[in-house]
Amino acid sequence: MTDSSAASTGAHSTTWKYENFEPAGSAIGYRITRKLDEVQSPFQKIEIYETTDWGNLMLIDGAVMLTTRDNFLYHEMMSHPALFTHDAPKRVVIIGGGDCGTLREVLKHPDVEHAVQCDIDEQVTRMAEKWFPELCESNHDPRAELLFDDGIAYMRNCPPESVDVVIVDSTDPVGPAEGLFNEAFYASCLKALRPGGILVQQSESPLVHMGLIKAMRHHMQVAGFSALRTLPFPQPCYPTGWWSCTLARKGAAELHSFRERGAQSKNFPTRYYNVDIHRAALVHPEFMREVFGD
Amino acid sequence: MTDSSAASTGAHSTTWKYENFEPAGSAIGYRITRKLDEVQSPFQKIEIYETTDWGNLMLIDGAVMLTTRDNFLYHEMMSHPALFTHDAPKRVVIIGGGDCGTLREVLKHPDVEHAVQCDIDEQVTRMAEKWFPELCESNHDPRAELLFDDGIAYMRNCPPESVDVVIVDSTDPVGPAEGLFNEAFYASCLKALRPGGILVQQSESPLVHMGLIKAMRHHMQVAGFSALRTLPFPQPCYPTGWWSCTLARKGAAELHSFRERGAQSKNFPTRYYNVDIHRAALVHPEFMREVFGD
Repeated sequence: MTDSSAASTGAHSTTWKYENFEPAGSAIGYRITRKLDEVQSPFQKIEIYETTDWGNLMLIDGAVMLTTRDNFLYHEMMSHPALFTHDAPKRVVIIGGGDCGTLREVLKHPDVEHAVQCDIDEQVTRMAEKWFPELCESNHDPRAELLFDDGIAYMRNCPPESVDVVIVDSTDPVGPAEGLFNEAFYASCLKALRPGGILVQQSESPLVHMGLIKAMRHHMQVAGFSALRTLPFPQPCYPTGWWSCTLARKGAAELHSFRERGAQSKNFPTRYYNVDIHRAALVHPEFMREVFGD
Repeated sequence: MTDSSAASTGAHSTTWKYENFEPAGSAIGYRITRKLDEVQSPFQKIEIYETTDWGNLMLIDGAVMLTTRDNFLYHEMMSHPALFTHDAPKRVVIIGGGDCGTLREVLKHPDVEHAVQCDIDEQVTRMAEKWFPELCESNHDPRAELLFDDGIAYMRNCPPESVDVVIVDSTDPVGPAEGLFNEAFYASCLKALRPGGILVQQSESPLVHMGLIKAMRHHMQVAGFSALRTLPFPQPCYPTGWWSCTLARKGAAELHSFRERGAQSKNFPTRYYNVDIHRAALVHPEFMREVFGD
């Protein structure tokens, strides 16, 4: 992030902070009032800022991870489409996801009996507990297990056919998260999943990362997943403001149909997701159809 | 726009330029190589920059209007949902729209017999012809009529029941465009429309402008429109990267059904819009449902 133009608004002075997305040639910024916290973990630098309009802001190595105001979009879309597509999602593994927002959404599903969150960096969770406590409200759910360990090794060592849904809630495919986007990792996920199991991977922006999305889908197919679907959704704090997750399924031909009645009558609140949004997210614009050949 | 951090990348030096959205507390920026053009019209300052990744960029009074790379999203969604909802859109009026991108999309519809574009500022169109020539490729279509005049007066003086679709392709509701968001203007549009006619208004970001969207919808209802629908779509160059248009209909109870067969078999290319995207855009996320009570 780069700083700019301090400005005084009444009692508080504010500054604009920008994240320049070098490969995309675009940037997103926030008006901030102050830095709230900073820690250098063994893996990365985590910073927390207070913004004027977006609540708290977490950066990792200068890249925007989440804001209080808009993280619901990402966390809901990383969780509910997969969990309402699986017939009976009992055992869920989240790789990454240290801010605990995905875990919270997963545990809203009464079917879930056990949810492991395995993030390599404990400091991300400690910062989330402090500055995004609402995302951590299910951390002490008896069904939750928080591990701070290598997610690649965790999936490699997972007992075969022991998991229903794997959610890869990672940073971008550079640095520590690079190994979460390749064929070997997807092969571990496939082995760990029961038949009909679903892998969810955050898959960047369809508007600027279609090459990466295509490569990721290819790796998933080569690893043996039999159905794929990339679901776009809005996410203002990430490059272009439009993001996606990709679902991959083991031993099932499609990812179009889901438990519509369950989604319609869900007994927990959401702010973005609903049964119609799920159906709508399965639709691809023309330019994605052309790339995917669907 | 504010400048920052000039950086050298090989032969060309690049700079990051940011637009700070003061009311939203967020910003969007681009990496630019140079300023291509600038003109001060009687109404506003228009600037054109060359970016590294987004083609050309037009700013009006420092606000991002469009880029070569992503304007297709906005222009397609401002046109095709309304034109495929109307049974036989023969006469179309575009208020604003000086970059001619909406006009181009409208004229892709063979049903359209006459399309007026009425923008107050001729210089916007002159700059578009020069720097976004692909958007102007239908300006000499015999069905097109380009006027440079006051859109509010144009609609007020329009013969009653003479128009099928009015598209308000305006800047934000401050400055010259303010009068395009109130009840008096919507009443003029209603009068000019034939029964079953449709008004389309760009309606800002559902993520940060729900107050404005609610007020606009209220004004449309008070003016006498009988059905309303706000359609969200991605648009990276505008605040939050997620935008919307609002459709309002004269003398018809709903805006849900459209000519699906026509949209399915359309004989012109689009990059975002298709029949499934149209259906998906009619869906509201939970937080919009709560505000609209739908």
